[in-house]
Amino acid sequence: MEKGTCRANANIALVKYWGKRDETLMLPQNGSISMTLDGMHTTTTVEFLPSLKADEVTLNDALLADGKEFAQVVEHLNIIREMAKIKTFARVASKNNFPTAAGLASSASGFAALSMAAAKAAGLKLNPQELSMLSRRGSGSASRSIHGGFVEWKRGEKSDGTDSYAQQIAPPSHWPNFRMLTTVVSTSEKKVKSRAGMKQTVETCPLYPGWLSSVNADLDAVRSGIKEKDFHKVGATAEHNCLKMHATMIATNPPIIYWNPATMEIIHLVQVMREEGVPVYFTIDAGPNVKVICQEENMQDIEARLKELSGVKNVHVCKPGGPAETLKEHLF
Amino acid sequence: MEKGTCRANANIALVKYWGKRDETLMLPQNGSISMTLDGMHTTTTVEFLPSLKADEVTLNDALLADGKEFAQVVEHLNIIREMAKIKTFARVASKNNFPTAAGLASSASGFAALSMAAAKAAGLKLNPQELSMLSRRGSGSASRSIHGGFVEWKRGEKSDGTDSYAQQIAPPSHWPNFRMLTTVVSTSEKKVKSRAGMKQTVETCPLYPGWLSSVNADLDAVRSGIKEKDFHKVGATAEHNCLKMHATMIATNPPIIYWNPATMEIIHLVQVMREEGVPVYFTIDAGPNVKVICQEENMQDIEARLKELSGVKNVHVCKPGGPAETLKEHLF
Repeated sequence: MEKGTCRANANIALVKYWGKRDETLMLPQNGSISMTLDGMHTTTTVEFLPSLKADEVTLNDALLADGKEFAQVVEHLNIIREMAKIKTFARVASKNNFPTAAGLASSASGFAALSMAAAKAAGLKLNPQELSMLSRRGSGSASRSIHGGFVEWKRGEKSDGTDSYAQQIAPPSHWPNFRMLTTVVSTSEKKVKSRAGMKQTVETCPLYPGWLSSVNADLDAVRSGIKEKDFHKVGATAEHNCLKMHATMIATNPPIIYWNPATMEIIHLVQVMREEGVPVYFTIDAGPNVKVICQEENMQDIEARLKELSGVKNVHVCKPGGPAETLKEHLF
Repeated sequence: MEKGTCRANANIALVKYWGKRDETLMLPQNGSISMTLDGMHTTTTVEFLPSLKADEVTLNDALLADGKEFAQVVEHLNIIREMAKIKTFARVASKNNFPTAAGLASSASGFAALSMAAAKAAGLKLNPQELSMLSRRGSGSASRSIHGGFVEWKRGEKSDGTDSYAQQIAPPSHWPNFRMLTTVVSTSEKKVKSRAGMKQTVETCPLYPGWLSSVNADLDAVRSGIKEKDFHKVGATAEHNCLKMHATMIATNPPIIYWNPATMEIIHLVQVMREEGVPVYFTIDAGPNVKVICQEENMQDIEARLKELSGVKNVHVCKPGGPAETLKEHLF
């Protein structure tokens, strides 16, 4: 069997994924829309080797010991082995080119790259739809990192998950001046991981049904806003959508409060800039870091003002990026 | 006619009032429970004088000019004039003994004292239930400041509001070591007043139905927790209830975000202290200031740690306080 090496970009949701309806198949309670980030990627090489007695996984050159992360990778390799009808263990090497502390979730790019590389190494010929569904099994948001530009992950209706995959809404070239500024305010590990957090919310948050009842309208608005390149529509809807998601977290019992003092500084600065007439919005994932949404023409001023805040450690500028791809050069 | 002078304490809700079902009669969407604060009071003298050509109102020795506050007082006096079948204008003097910047809403103590003093001056003989309903017309939370100790304002079912008034759950002597530490983190005027904010939430927040569906369970828990003096039950429920209310604000469109960096500092400190085993909770009204809930035996340590936070300007310690009362000495 051959080595497979693939690269996938991270993505940031404009309409958030929060809550599963099936924990094993990773089927979401609601659809989501994201932008794939140019140049913020994970590269992964996989090789199935009969000589191995167990899977061997390195992440950023460090061997993953027994633990949750390692178990998730093995579980994902098991799905691929079952699909390919093989029993061989694999050597996996994975590298993120963005700092782990960039305020970006690496599970999306990580599981997309792993799925694509492992499928190739196992001799599976999967189309983007199948790759998206496979990536979804590793981490829900990874389903979106298979595609470039602006991407929608369909909720689907079927209980076997065969209609729950991501599709491209528009390529990066459709809206090249769209920007996300990912701010870094905290490098500490978050206390509640997304996986546990969303489960807790679905189970205990009395406001969660209101989230679900309103998310389809947000999907319609952001999808059509992207097609029309209506910045206000996309930005305002994305911001409201993220605030609704955080509202469901805050109203979870016990509460999940990801915001810290610096998060509030940025939220209020974005509101102030908007009052001054600057077209700027924000979105926040399951953590304290804020992603500021703007267009290229306003970017420099916004970036400068963000950097003035005492709680902001770093700002990374991200453009719409391309799809996951196969590379010829391997990591080992 | 005689002068009437009354004094009413402020109160802080443990189960919050957020949203009206009738704007004119001030009928709430849900019931609420509060603690009346010892010694944080408004004193008000009212005299109806045939010689006056208009109502004359002073607040903390300053004449209220034409404006929203003045209009609300006049409107409230009109209700009392109608009840008493008089047309005379009134002189009103009102004083808060707590600093306006104490992080306390003065509308609760203010409208309770005004209602009681004006009713007396107009020769109306009202019982506490009637006084509570009258106070409610000025400001919903004022209905609770008529009583001392722990107080429940019943939502009521009737469209004329005759079953929507406050009742005492337990007097201050029932739980004398219960404490609220009101922290002051911001003295600036809030951008969205409670009245406008709750209207916006009822009209635009998709999560609001979830708030309403869960508040009765909170009322049951806090009511029985007070009767049983179960500090954990009262504190945990009050904190979750306040977080649900803020969640509905955050998910309002446009959003109402009252929290600032210092708010987050206090929230996280309370969570940390609880992880250390200290029985302490928080509640937050429609603003950035946090009220920390504890018992007398833990108070000093908690107060000291709150004062160490960079964003905390001041901490006031409040015990359960007594009911609104008539005074013999007048303000003029």
